[in-house]
Amino acid sequence: MSDRNSIDVIVSEVGPRDGLQSVKRTMPTQAKIAWITALANAGLPEIEVGSFVSPRLLPQMADAADVVRAALRLGNTAILALVPNRKGAERAFAAGTPRVTMPVSASRLHSQSNINMSPEQAIDQVAAVVDLRDSLPVTPAGTRPLVEVGISTAFGCTMEGPVAEDWVIALAVMAAKAGADTVNLSDTTGMGNPAQVKRLFARLQRELGDKAGGAHFHNTRGQGLANVVAALEVGVTTFDSSQAGLGGCPYAPGATGNIVTEDLAFLLEAMGLRTGIDIEKLAAARSLILEGLPEEPLYGHVADAGLPKGFVYAATRSVA
Amino acid sequence: MSDRNSIDVIVSEVGPRDGLQSVKRTMPTQAKIAWITALANAGLPEIEVGSFVSPRLLPQMADAADVVRAALRLGNTAILALVPNRKGAERAFAAGTPRVTMPVSASRLHSQSNINMSPEQAIDQVAAVVDLRDSLPVTPAGTRPLVEVGISTAFGCTMEGPVAEDWVIALAVMAAKAGADTVNLSDTTGMGNPAQVKRLFARLQRELGDKAGGAHFHNTRGQGLANVVAALEVGVTTFDSSQAGLGGCPYAPGATGNIVTEDLAFLLEAMGLRTGIDIEKLAAARSLILEGLPEEPLYGHVADAGLPKGFVYAATRSVA
Repeated sequence: MSDRNSIDVIVSEVGPRDGLQSVKRTMPTQAKIAWITALANAGLPEIEVGSFVSPRLLPQMADAADVVRAALRLGNTAILALVPNRKGAERAFAAGTPRVTMPVSASRLHSQSNINMSPEQAIDQVAAVVDLRDSLPVTPAGTRPLVEVGISTAFGCTMEGPVAEDWVIALAVMAAKAGADTVNLSDTTGMGNPAQVKRLFARLQRELGDKAGGAHFHNTRGQGLANVVAALEVGVTTFDSSQAGLGGCPYAPGATGNIVTEDLAFLLEAMGLRTGIDIEKLAAARSLILEGLPEEPLYGHVADAGLPKGFVYAATRSVA
Repeated sequence: MSDRNSIDVIVSEVGPRDGLQSVKRTMPTQAKIAWITALANAGLPEIEVGSFVSPRLLPQMADAADVVRAALRLGNTAILALVPNRKGAERAFAAGTPRVTMPVSASRLHSQSNINMSPEQAIDQVAAVVDLRDSLPVTPAGTRPLVEVGISTAFGCTMEGPVAEDWVIALAVMAAKAGADTVNLSDTTGMGNPAQVKRLFARLQRELGDKAGGAHFHNTRGQGLANVVAALEVGVTTFDSSQAGLGGCPYAPGATGNIVTEDLAFLLEAMGLRTGIDIEKLAAARSLILEGLPEEPLYGHVADAGLPKGFVYAATRSVA
């Protein structure tokens, strides 16, 4: 199901990273691996499986290397991990992570409190990680790891309020010049609206060309899927989401949960866009969250309401 | 705030009708009037205040005439009520209702179980209500009541599954030919998706011209605001919603709640579309639901998360 050629839109599951890092308890390593395996089996084409931050800051992510190594055995699911800086990237590359994603916050206050760097210092770290990546030997397939950047608080900041769109785009250009392969935009705080989403992604694409990446939306004010529709209108084809809406940003008060993977997959498939995801298998994987984190609250509508009577997956329709 | 010339998109509050009819308990008449007054004071330009169905079927709506009479004293807020048939319209017009809305279900099974008529019989009732309306004396302002039709289950039916788009449009054309002033499309069961929304509203507008009306979406699968964005893309300018997501269709199992007025108003204002609504005043009106229906569950994100730091209403922005 997760063959890249047979899907129209990439749903990138970030629950094992963005979700679990915002839960105070730590999901045991074996439970994480069981959950990630179920996500891959449900057809998720991409999974962000952990974060190589200091285990002092986020003990929930201390096992990132073990989780990456286990996830790499899952076949053709793309595996990503977050790295905040060069030190994290060293650990990530040592574990064999084929793709790392680095947060660069457009809000100075958020950047300082989230990664203790200015946005410019975060860009320097991107350059350092790209250098490190370029120094690695190529794999037997002739490749080196990819370096993605996500511009966080790109749609507003709980501390600063609105963030200037010119600055968001300038920062994205700096990240691309620093060597990032892809630059994504993140609504870390759930402040974005569809008009702004269309404006910013259209500009990102104009400025960055094929380095312009996907969207990471939160559902703080219930606007997540509305913003997805707006992004689809301007041609965005990769969306982060978290199963059951786990997640949020521990440094952005009031920013609750990523958009819900089940609801996003339903949106896309119902629109006729192939995701490779089996929504019922995906919903069944919720039980593995609860095995690792008993009684954790789970969110989303589709898992409760079920697929509508007569629902047909996009792939089936395009064959018919 | 509710001057029609100063708003871009009409949010039509249906909570006092669609919301309250799906709650088993009955909100006392005085509590309804207090709530509707608060909604009008928060700037809602339109409120559907009740339903002239048989009080045997929906005792919650038995006081519709009293509620309409009280609501008509609220100044320039447009007041609507639902009527299922000519008998209901007689009561509605006698109470002075300036605009009635009639449900015509595209699904035969839903039509039968909801209003005990076939879709064609429901169209006959539309013609009968239009005849009745045309027989009324004109008001001092030289007008007669308006007759709206909402095509329910237009995006799918929990009993029948998918509903043919050709048939939905054919039924809308029949309603317009029967004399309806406006024809709306309703996703009664929360099965609609943005691609379908764009297709159906574009066809409705082509076939009906200025009789093509607004959208009534439910949030059963979390897709309500995503569908609003799609409808905006094709020029729809009126949306039904219910404060705190009260509502749903008692005859469509699994169909929970209208889209949430607070979240919809935030979406539109954040996009730069003027609604005339004061979102904070609106959120404060939630307390009046609880005075009339203690401990009723309230839904929605914006009332919980609050407006983002630095939020600016659309009207303020366009003046600036």
